[in-house]
This record gives sequence, structure tokens and C-alpha cells, in this order.
Amino acid sequence: MSDIELVSATKSFGGWLKRYKHHSKVLNCEMIFAIYLPPAAEQKDVPLLWWLSGLTCTDENFMQKAGAQRRAAELGLALVCPDTSPRGTDLPGEHDSYDFGSGAGFYVNATQAPWSQHYRMYDYVTEELPALVNEHFPLNGRQAISGHSMGGHGALICALKNPHRYTSVSAFAPITHPVACPWGEKAFSGYLGDDRESWKDWDASELIRRQGSALPLMVDQGDADNFYTDGQLRPEDLQAACEDTGVALTLRMQPGYDHSYFFIASFIDDHLTYHYGQLCR
Amino acid sequence: MSDIELVSATKSFGGWLKRYKHHSKVLNCEMIFAIYLPPAAEQKDVPLLWWLSGLTCTDENFMQKAGAQRRAAELGLALVCPDTSPRGTDLPGEHDSYDFGSGAGFYVNATQAPWSQHYRMYDYVTEELPALVNEHFPLNGRQAISGHSMGGHGALICALKNPHRYTSVSAFAPITHPVACPWGEKAFSGYLGDDRESWKDWDASELIRRQGSALPLMVDQGDADNFYTDGQLRPEDLQAACEDTGVALTLRMQPGYDHSYFFIASFIDDHLTYHYGQLCR
Repeated sequence: MSDIELVSATKSFGGWLKRYKHHSKVLNCEMIFAIYLPPAAEQKDVPLLWWLSGLTCTDENFMQKAGAQRRAAELGLALVCPDTSPRGTDLPGEHDSYDFGSGAGFYVNATQAPWSQHYRMYDYVTEELPALVNEHFPLNGRQAISGHSMGGHGALICALKNPHRYTSVSAFAPITHPVACPWGEKAFSGYLGDDRESWKDWDASELIRRQGSALPLMVDQGDADNFYTDGQLRPEDLQAACEDTGVALTLRMQPGYDHSYFFIASFIDDHLTYHYGQLCR
Repeated sequence: MSDIELVSATKSFGGWLKRYKHHSKVLNCEMIFAIYLPPAAEQKDVPLLWWLSGLTCTDENFMQKAGAQRRAAELGLALVCPDTSPRGTDLPGEHDSYDFGSGAGFYVNATQAPWSQHYRMYDYVTEELPALVNEHFPLNGRQAISGHSMGGHGALICALKNPHRYTSVSAFAPITHPVACPWGEKAFSGYLGDDRESWKDWDASELIRRQGSALPLMVDQGDADNFYTDGQLRPEDLQAACEDTGVALTLRMQPGYDHSYFFIASFIDDHLTYHYGQLCR
């Protein structure tokens, strides 16, 4: 019996969007992920872009709303969207708020009970799921990573902690300095406990100050994004960290754009084209 | 006081997606519609494509999932999405099924009580809403129409009954012969009563047999669409009617595609480009 089970297959721009169910050993639960295979994948192994989604999302939001398949099909680029947290568990308070617990795994490895039994999304998206998709799909082993908001934070820390594993990294409206914003403080307190120093291992701005970055960073941020104006995203902190350490950052402030998938859709082609260029170098 | 009230404004591909609330006299209730204004609309009046959505949809599905704004922005084409039925009413049984009542107005003028008090979606999308959007937005008066499934049926009957009002018409997986399929029989019985002869005024295949069509028709249909294989859509009936009457029909059977917005997204650019060409002739 295969270790992945097809949930649905939908033709899209000449390729296939497929959703699979599997048992995650790392997360100790059943998970669903989505993969888009471009038409080129019927002929050869193709490179892969990981997409990490934001708070409240599942594997579905990006595939339905970002409009990424059109350009991915043209380029011959596979896309994988993991879910945003363990599922089917029922820990105390897990489903009570949108910014902690289900739908809000923050791509860290929790150290605090009861979360540490399941909430190891970092190991899931950097180890277990890459091994699984490379085993089952026509991928050439080259991978890049991007994401949105909480998933933009996830993409940045995955790349900063594994600079040789990804050819490139980008983010849309990422949480850039979680130790210094309300979303990050809530999540890291719950998953990582009270030692704020330990939080810095999961913070892009702090990791850059500690070690720099072998990869250049590409970030789009809408200036009408209410989470930006509320101080949850803090791209200026990322910019300061990059300037102080000589890390190459392309930060594009996009006038009038908000935090939604309409913003992502407007600029996703730029990101796909950028990643594809790096993946094929 | 203005007769339309802004609900939201979201920047998208350099233009603006706006949702408005207004009181519809025709429908005797409050309605929401969405309009996408491309960047060109800041400089000049632009042509308009109407999009009529399918069963269960609102004004939001197409704007979120079809990925149409990218090409519409390039072309300088406005998009308007009405809702699919009256809202805020509470007629007996109105919310009981997905294929009749709320979310399922079928773009006809109901003659049967209690539906005839509100369910006049044909007059709404061909008369009241066009007058409203032409009054409030930078539109040049040229309009085309398209839609999906129930909304594909709607687009076809609007164009067949008003061939001089639209420059062009197209549809994705339309219900083409509602008097001969379960969806149509249920809806027309409820809205129009038992006289099946009267139903033919609202049936694309029957209208073509009666009067032909001044406009050519463009239809995309996925061959893996379960509603097609179940006999709800019947493109072969439309094809036969067009062949028998000499109406130009471009029917593209798209192998492997289903009924979803992934299908629409895959081919929407073709439709936008086609309509824009006709709108600018």
C-alpha cells in the first residue's frame, strides 16, 4: 500500500493539481498537501517551488486564489502547498483562535506540551514532506521556497536555516520579526515557552543579525496592508537587519495593496519567474 | 445620498476590485455586485464584460478564483459580477436546496408566486444593473457577456434576447438546453410554472431554433465535467440547434477538464481576448 493517497486530481492549465492524504510521522497525524504538476512534468523531472500559506489557510487557498498555475505551467515549475498546522488533533484550546493552534503552526518545532506532540511544522516542511514528494513525483531535486504572512516567515526561516537546500527564497507580506510583534509573541510563547532568547532561532530578522544570509531575499509588501500598519509584519526591521549585515534584500513596497490573495495574484508571476531563473542556474 | 454604497475596495493588478451594495427595485431587496476597473479606467472610459456565475456562487467566486483581472488589466477591460439571486429575502423553501432559490436565480423573470415578487434576475442583469454601472463608472457603453454553468445559460439567453446590446457572448460549461435537463426542469417549474411551452423563452437551444442568433457563440466545455456526463449541460443540443439554423458556434471540448474554476482559469484569457477584440471593433 502506498504511503500517500490521492484525494482529488483537477486539470489546470494543461497540468494537474493533485491533493494527497498521508500519515505524517513528524506531526503524528493525517495531513493533506497539494501539488501542481505542470505539463512539462509528463516528459521530464521539473524543479519545485514550495509555498507556505498564512494564518487560517489550508493547502487550498494558494492553489485556488493566487493564479500561479498559469505561469508555473508556462515555465515548467511544480508547486507544493503544505497545510498550515497539524490536523485532526484536538489539543486543549487548539481551535479557539485564528492565530494559534490549528491553521497557525508558524512553521516551528514546538517544545512545549501539549504542542510538542504534534506541532513540528518546521521538520514537516523541511524534511518529511520534501522526502515524500521527491519519492513520488517527477521532480529534479532543485527547490525554492516562498510564502505569505505567517508562511512568508516560514519561507524565510526555512531558507535561512538551510541555505544550501533552496536555490532562492521570497515572501509576500511576511512576518519578519516575530519576537517583536503580537502574533509572534503569542505563538512563540505557546509553542516555545517563556525563554525569549530561544525564540530567536525562529526569527528571520534575528537569524540574519546572527549569521547573515547566503541567499538574497525578495519581499513584496503592500503599503495598505492593515497588518503592516498594525506592526505585525515589520519589514523595516528586516531591512535594518539586512543593511547592518550586508545581506541583499529586494523589498518592494507596493502602493495601495492590502494583505489579500488579490495582492499575491498581482505579483506572483514576478516571483515564479525569479525562482525559476535561480532553479535553472 | 448615492444609490450605491461601497462595501470594499481592493487593489488588483494595478486596478481596483470594488464591491457595492444597492437597493434593487427590480428584485425588491438589497444586492451586492462586484466591479473590476482596470488601470486604463483612470484615464478613459473602458468597455465592459459581464460575468454571470453559476449555482451557489455570489459576486465573489469569479473575482477570487478565475484569475481574470490579470488579462483584463492588460487589455483595459472592466468586469462586472452580479450576484446569482435575490438576497435577504426569506421565501418558503428558498434556502433548502443548492439548485433552486437563493444562489440559483437562473437569470429568468419568475412568473409564479411567491418567486415573482423578487426573482427577476433577467431584468436585473440586462436592465437595472447596466443602467446603474453606466451611471457610476468610467464605461464606454460597449458590453459583452459571459458566464459559467447556470451563468453560461444566463449569458446565452441575455445575448440571444438582446443581440444588439452585446458585442459578443461566450460561456464556460453552460446549461444549454434547460427545458431538457433536471436542473432546468426544477428551476423552470418553480419560477415559470407548469406550461412547458413558456419555458422555451428562456432556453438557448430553443431560442436558436426559433430565431437563430445574430451573434456567433463561443463555448468551452470540459469533457471530464461530471455535470456534462450527467446530462445537465447538453452542449450537443446547442450544437445541433446551431447546425440546423446556420448559427456560428465555436464549441471547444477541453480534454480532462472538470466543472471547476480551475477549468475557467485555464481558458479565461482566451475569452477576455476574444471579447476585447469584439468590443473594440
